Amino acid sequence: MSEIIWDIAHLAHVEILTPKLDESTRFFTEIMGMSITATLGNSVYLRAYDDYEHHTLKLTADKQAGMRHFAWRARSQQGLANRVAAIKSTGLGIGWNDGDLGHGPAYEFRSPDGHLIEIYFETEKHRSTAKDQSALKNTASRFPGRGINVRRIDHLNLFASDVRAFRDFQLESLGGVLSETIVNNLEEMHPHAVWFMVNSKSYDLAVTYDALQMKGRFHHVTYAVNSREEVLIAADICLENGIQIETGPHKHTIQQTFFLYVYEPGGNRVEIANTTARLITDPDYQTVVWTLEERKKGQAWGLPTIPSFHSRGTPMPTIKQEV
Amino acid sequence: MSEIIWDIAHLAHVEILTPKLDESTRFFTEIMGMSITATLGNSVYLRAYDDYEHHTLKLTADKQAGMRHFAWRARSQQGLANRVAAIKSTGLGIGWNDGDLGHGPAYEFRSPDGHLIEIYFETEKHRSTAKDQSALKNTASRFPGRGINVRRIDHLNLFASDVRAFRDFQLESLGGVLSETIVNNLEEMHPHAVWFMVNSKSYDLAVTYDALQMKGRFHHVTYAVNSREEVLIAADICLENGIQIETGPHKHTIQQTFFLYVYEPGGNRVEIANTTARLITDPDYQTVVWTLEERKKGQAWGLPTIPSFHSRGTPMPTIKQEV
Amino acid sequence: MSEIIWDIAHLAHVEILTPKLDESTRFFTEIMGMSITATLGNSVYLRAYDDYEHHTLKLTADKQAGMRHFAWRARSQQGLANRVAAIKSTGLGIGWNDGDLGHGPAYEFRSPDGHLIEIYFETEKHRSTAKDQSALKNTASRFPGRGINVRRIDHLNLFASDVRAFRDFQLESLGGVLSETIVNNLEEMHPHAVWFMVNSKSYDLAVTYDALQMKGRFHHVTYAVNSREEVLIAADICLENGIQIETGPHKHTIQQTFFLYVYEPGGNRVEIANTTARLITDPDYQTVVWTLEERKKGQAWGLPTIPSFHSRGTPMPTIKQEV
Amino acid sequence: MSEIIWDIAHLAHVEILTPKLDESTRFFTEIMGMSITATLGNSVYLRAYDDYEHHTLKLTADKQAGMRHFAWRARSQQGLANRVAAIKSTGLGIGWNDGDLGHGPAYEFRSPDGHLIEIYFETEKHRSTAKDQSALKNTASRFPGRGINVRRIDHLNLFASDVRAFRDFQLESLGGVLSETIVNNLEEMHPHAVWFMVNSKSYDLAVTYDALQMKGRFHHVTYAVNSREEVLIAADICLENGIQIETGPHKHTIQQTFFLYVYEPGGNRVEIANTTARLITDPDYQTVVWTLEERKKGQAWGLPTIPSFHSRGTPMPTIKQEV
Repeated sequence: MSEIIWDIAHLAHVEILTPKLDESTRFFTEIMGMSITATLGNSVYLRAYDDYEHHTLKLTADKQAGMRHFAWRARSQQGLANRVAAIKSTGLGIGWNDGDLGHGPAYEFRSPDGHLIEIYFETEKHRSTAKDQSALKNTASRFPGRGINVRRIDHLNLFASDVRAFRDFQLESLGGVLSETIVNNLEEMHPHAVWFMVNSKSYDLAVTYDALQMKGRFHHVTYAVNSREEVLIAADICLENGIQIETGPHKHTIQQTFFLYVYEPGGNRVEIANTTARLITDPDYQTVVWTLEERKKGQAWGLPTIPSFHSRGTPMPTIKQEV
Repeated sequence: MSEIIWDIAHLAHVEILTPKLDESTRFFTEIMGMSITATLGNSVYLRAYDDYEHHTLKLTADKQAGMRHFAWRARSQQGLANRVAAIKSTGLGIGWNDGDLGHGPAYEFRSPDGHLIEIYFETEKHRSTAKDQSALKNTASRFPGRGINVRRIDHLNLFASDVRAFRDFQLESLGGVLSETIVNNLEEMHPHAVWFMVNSKSYDLAVTYDALQMKGRFHHVTYAVNSREEVLIAADICLENGIQIETGPHKHTIQQTFFLYVYEPGGNRVEIANTTARLITDPDYQTVVWTLEERKKGQAWGLPTIPSFHSRGTPMPTIKQEV
Repeated sequence: MSEIIWDIAHLAHVEILTPKLDESTRFFTEIMGMSITATLGNSVYLRAYDDYEHHTLKLTADKQAGMRHFAWRARSQQGLANRVAAIKSTGLGIGWNDGDLGHGPAYEFRSPDGHLIEIYFETEKHRSTAKDQSALKNTASRFPGRGINVRRIDHLNLFASDVRAFRDFQLESLGGVLSETIVNNLEEMHPHAVWFMVNSKSYDLAVTYDALQMKGRFHHVTYAVNSREEVLIAADICLENGIQIETGPHKHTIQQTFFLYVYEPGGNRVEIANTTARLITDPDYQTVVWTLEERKKGQAWGLPTIPSFHSRGTPMPTIKQEV
Repeated sequence: MSEIIWDIAHLAHVEILTPKLDESTRFFTEIMGMSITATLGNSVYLRAYDDYEHHTLKLTADKQAGMRHFAWRARSQQGLANRVAAIKSTGLGIGWNDGDLGHGPAYEFRSPDGHLIEIYFETEKHRSTAKDQSALKNTASRFPGRGINVRRIDHLNLFASDVRAFRDFQLESLGGVLSETIVNNLEEMHPHAVWFMVNSKSYDLAVTYDALQMKGRFHHVTYAVNSREEVLIAADICLENGIQIETGPHKHTIQQTFFLYVYEPGGNRVEIANTTARLITDPDYQTVVWTLEERKKGQAWGLPTIPSFHSRGTPMPTIKQEV
């Protein structure tokens, strides 16, 4: 086996499109408990209280819901250069941009499914002010005591029409480890879903098969809280505020994430989760493989996987399908 | 043994005095997550989200911290009449008032230590509006998602210069059960602290010995949250907002309450606790007796009881003693 | 409104029938964490670590699963006498037995649906030995650190072919309060499910409509743990030990119980729950009424109520129906 | 700044010496919930249910308590070779051994304070059997449902007479990041305590100043549970089983670990903790520096740091000092 590439540090941020910018912003600030760090043009930049960068979420007004781009932060300038070279060699590279609020120059590229991605190293770390400074200086800013109090961005989940192509590109060009996967069966090993690990957290990115066979869609972004109890409280907060709960709280069989899926007012799926019990520090970890047959058991304690999970993503097709 | 008297339904409300009304109000609304239901004269009336009455806390501006009065709600008009008769016979009765915002006529009396107490039956229950209505109609109002999110008033703790006199008066005139007690030793059985149960919750009122030998002082009022995890989060919220933590979170040996003690800006001690794991439904329950010797072990997991707990109450003596 | 009768202290114990006594016993001891207090004939007597009586569960070998009887403890000898007189006047009385291991003489009667019930006052409280004594003398016995570690019996749920008849009998002859109910609609107010409160815990007994129209069936018995986190851990323990999970963990809309339903090896449904956040101390509490229409929303956070909940009880009909 | 070295994967195992091997073994199996994977000579090998290697703890009978050695696992054979070369160049190298049960050849060396350390890459992963297989194949073995149910080894804490020497050796020869540190003051920056991060978990090793100025002592080893609630339950389990609790549960200011410190029967300190809320994925993370002055505030919510923490380690001096 070739040496594992560890040039990616972590998922950095996601730019989400919303037809209801004000309502989406209110959801992420008042319900999720995040803070606005900047507003520019049609975009609002936000972070959770322990996100160390300028922002991990960029909300941009658009006609329909979806994701414009997401970003990886590289581990070093050298790691960045290595990855850019690898991406270029696949023909999926686009080119460098000048950066955005909060980070330096980023190299843009497409996933094989067409998702717009960027990678950068230079970043502007959050500097707390008297107003948002935490009493504990190992926390990026003050625990807000507002709504769900999400702590940090955790992972991103994308739909892909061709999961295998995404997987191969990711592992070869970006690096990291395939920590878990769903395959059609153990003979053919055709991937239906993949989870990518780039640090000791068991995944920063998941890609699942899009049953509508659309290209480049967004499934959900996940913010983490500190405990399962807070996921349960999050469910109450959503219930009390008319936020649509799709499924959960329950424990995923795969990755053991304790999840709650809701829809923000713009129509994008958002997950509140407690994930960190499952760390992977084994340097020659073997991918855990699940078959579609095994996945019929549903989630860890038997909750059936909700059908909308396989087809509802953003953007939605013009003629609305049944979910 | 004579039949137990069950005429008292529960601790109803506490009127706390504060030299900093605005700051105290901000503490109870923004940090504790309570709501203002009325403002009248120098007083602000508040309730937690699942308190069913008009208010459980009345904050009144005064020169120094302390408690003006607290109230019991009787189980019925007949129960009220019975208790008033019993109180009158002790000579500690004062007389009827016309009620206050949120409740009907109340009979006022003094504890043997001089605390002002009232008892009433007629009450005005909280009627939620569109703005504060819970999605679950078995909740008095909406989970706030703000600060500590206390659920309901739990219990009151008073200092007394003569604990035995308070105990005998309480059990004979008000009824209920002495669920736990600290005595000097098993031979003399002189009480140092007493916990009174009036329903299935193991206590609504506690009275402890005032080492300063002052009369009629207030020790603390407790609001309950749903879980121990929320007590831990409450500690973080207090830490982040500069609220002085006195001791905790830890588990009390007595009553097993998971506690956090803080001081509100007016100088009164407030407890945030998770208490309800310990219910008592045994109708011939025997008081659990602890000796001062046993209490030297400190709290359940060994935390020493903080010395200020035995002497710091409100009001404080004019010449400030060491705590 | 007539005065509420408070002569019943609490649900005391349940006798469950099992065709697999050994396996059921192993489930309740090793998985649930309960202790055997006696074995007599075909029966095993068990209690949870903070149950104060001799037993709260009696497992009896039989050809099929079900419930032989359950018991109420009265608040006093006088309360017992009052209730027996009231029951006799309905014609549902059977007569006195000599008691059983752990309790004194009990009066037996039938519910209108045919369930066998008894009521008694004299009881034998659990006396812990050196082996099972808790370090905290306000706990009935030592926290076991084994399996789910259930703390105490919480409530019983029965099926009835005629819920209205059960409800009227219960309130008139036994007393207590109807804390919540499901009715067909607000015009006819025909009850489909009822929850009875006999102390400050919001229910000790629930009765729901048996869609199979069988008489006198058992739905489930519930044991309480101290936190929702422990209900989640219980789900993992059941998963790891091959115990069938029917539904949950999730939060009930009604009563807000955080539930997990499983089947013990004998075929009876058992619930592990955290219930005590919801106390009712309001002495003139008004029943919360839900319509069948409202119940279509499912449980608190949207989980559909599982269909087997309406028809699967014990005993099951001879010709096994679909669940 | 020079490039960070990431050749170490994680803390692998610790060999603890105990004068009471049987009792210590009972503690780690029955109280901590760990499993024995082998017994050889005077040693018992154990692992927590989600430890992926053969063992993370080796208990060896000896005259007095202490630590014989601990081990790092390298990320790769190349990483191992790099580290061995770096260690050799310091003169602290000892040489290769043939491995032990569960792992291949290891290179032995001394810390500047004299602690015996080894580093290896080849390992034998735990293969669960029918008896201990988890229902979730992303878990190394079955959740035990016994005692504290610790999940995995988390970190090791050592005393050193010269913290600066240890720090410099660790960062230069082993690599990783100094995530937090306590210094005497910001002018002199003399280190009193250091925390080393070798993956995304904020520390795998901590070294603190030994107030007794002894060399090479052991402070504690920490096993992780999944939630803070389980740390609280762990405290009850220790209380119920006569295990001496030194301090906690409480939240550390540094690293925010939610901790409980106890003594195993052999006399070594053991921590049960929930640590994983605090991940560090920032690739150019700046060390958080605390001064001795700041540390006077005690732990996060104000608990004073217990004095024995600065002097009690194993082995203890022959003439027992006051703790």
